[in-house]
Amino acid sequence: MHILIIGAAGMVGRKLAGRLARDGALGEAPVEALTLVDVVPPETPDGFAGRTVLETGDLSAPGTAQKLIEGRPDVIFHLAAIVSGEAELDFDKGYRINLDGTRALFDAVRAAHEADGYFPRIVFTSSIAVVGAPLPFPIPDEFHTTPLTSYGTQKAICELLLSDYTRRGFFDGIGIRLPTICIRPGRPNAAASGFFSNILREPLVGQEAVLPVSEDVRHWHTSPRSAVGFLVHAATMDLSQVGPRRNLSMPGLSATVGEQIEALRRVAGDGAVKLIRREPDEMIARMCAGWAPGFEAKRARELGFVAETSFDEIIRAHIDDELGGRL
Amino acid sequence: MHILIIGAAGMVGRKLAGRLARDGALGEAPVEALTLVDVVPPETPDGFAGRTVLETGDLSAPGTAQKLIEGRPDVIFHLAAIVSGEAELDFDKGYRINLDGTRALFDAVRAAHEADGYFPRIVFTSSIAVVGAPLPFPIPDEFHTTPLTSYGTQKAICELLLSDYTRRGFFDGIGIRLPTICIRPGRPNAAASGFFSNILREPLVGQEAVLPVSEDVRHWHTSPRSAVGFLVHAATMDLSQVGPRRNLSMPGLSATVGEQIEALRRVAGDGAVKLIRREPDEMIARMCAGWAPGFEAKRARELGFVAETSFDEIIRAHIDDELGGRL
Repeated sequence: MHILIIGAAGMVGRKLAGRLARDGALGEAPVEALTLVDVVPPETPDGFAGRTVLETGDLSAPGTAQKLIEGRPDVIFHLAAIVSGEAELDFDKGYRINLDGTRALFDAVRAAHEADGYFPRIVFTSSIAVVGAPLPFPIPDEFHTTPLTSYGTQKAICELLLSDYTRRGFFDGIGIRLPTICIRPGRPNAAASGFFSNILREPLVGQEAVLPVSEDVRHWHTSPRSAVGFLVHAATMDLSQVGPRRNLSMPGLSATVGEQIEALRRVAGDGAVKLIRREPDEMIARMCAGWAPGFEAKRARELGFVAETSFDEIIRAHIDDELGGRL
Repeated sequence: MHILIIGAAGMVGRKLAGRLARDGALGEAPVEALTLVDVVPPETPDGFAGRTVLETGDLSAPGTAQKLIEGRPDVIFHLAAIVSGEAELDFDKGYRINLDGTRALFDAVRAAHEADGYFPRIVFTSSIAVVGAPLPFPIPDEFHTTPLTSYGTQKAICELLLSDYTRRGFFDGIGIRLPTICIRPGRPNAAASGFFSNILREPLVGQEAVLPVSEDVRHWHTSPRSAVGFLVHAATMDLSQVGPRRNLSMPGLSATVGEQIEALRRVAGDGAVKLIRREPDEMIARMCAGWAPGFEAKRARELGFVAETSFDEIIRAHIDDELGGRL
């Protein structure tokens, strides 16, 4: 099996490539080749016995998509995107990469399908940003997509394209709406939602972290490990059960900031919790109020997608995967 | 006030131009100029005292959108589209006209906004084809858009673009999801949904009509007169009440074919009803099963959009507007 990961240098892309390399297989099928592409050079994952091809390229540039599918990969993971904040600041860039880039990929696959019957599975990562406030809790699977960002708009449009191209028989597409990834490894970043990870990740290694909102803020989370699990399941599941509604809200854990903190206390003690410094930020608090508190994710659960059921689990997954299993 | 109608040679476009010409005003504002454009030559509406400019052009062709807004129309009605059947048969044409053409218009307005502060109202006609079976009845305003045609996909994508461009402040957009128009004037056509009009329009003038489905088929209707009313209301209402969810399912009348026939009997008698010939068509029956039975349209009603409340009214509107007021 030949697998293409577009957006392979990002956090989720790296973890997915790492898992495929470790497993040496996708489901039952041995992985013979991995093509990893991103706008910055991706890295060869450790311990992969098969062939790895590393590419740098911009999916929205003419010819890039055609070139990427020349080797007719069996599965395409499309994770590449300009993130929310940047897509809001740079309107043209967001539409070019997130919408036109995705459409270029879909059209290249369609042309290949019409030329030689090529029919890959495409796993597309969408986002909970496709919905916008006011939101019920939990958000049902049938809730409409009324995004309040250009990023969310671009993701919602790509969901529609994916469904239509799949219905037309050009490829076998599945879109998965990822919850916010928590605990995001690495250093604190400037993203407005960064604090959800910061207030756990930093105290776990004895560092201070800033909490800009009140403890009753509720949001929708999943670990990096579960996100990779969703991608693998989406790539291997029987899509004939899914029907024409090809975009699924992934399961996750709905939790308040207070619940996050109590889980930290249980796993790492009062000392860790004391490292969280309250520094209210009105702007972040206002943005938070528009974010998704949680989804029903009934269809995805029925289709076998599995996420954590407590924040203790999410914290332990981070300790295992990022801190060598110990505090 | 200067008004641009894109798609002015179509049935709804002609009726809208006719109403604006007759009224000489849009709401309180006198109409000084009408620019009418379509891929086929539009006609000058009767009795208009202002200036009329007629254009032929394809919105998706480079430069067309820029040219159309050179005169900086205050209100743009965008009604142009490749219809459902053709968009399904010709994938590229459907996406080019229905998606890329609309995006070209929005981008031209955005460029003009950034150049000189141009800020028109854009009224976009969407469709009930943005939803797809299985559907609840009535369909709530918050129901998700999972179209089952490329046409519906293109309309749903344009709705998302309209909301995002409006949120960004490039123009003041409003999208209205029109019910199936009934009674559609003119001759019977090949559209699968044509029978909803045919079984009323033809018997009203003593002609036979074919009914290909059973009488319990339920669908969602509005008269051409109400559709024009929706457009005028959308162009004149206070959009500050609408918020960021800029696409509204219009009110309409949910009725079964049997209810249509009973209304025909009340208005035109048994003789008219006898002209309906049953000729079951399995393919049309299957297609019908996926169509929208009716919407709640709560927001649109609260915002002042008004539709017929009985099929008798719809039939009488047809007699008034198309048959000179008498049978």
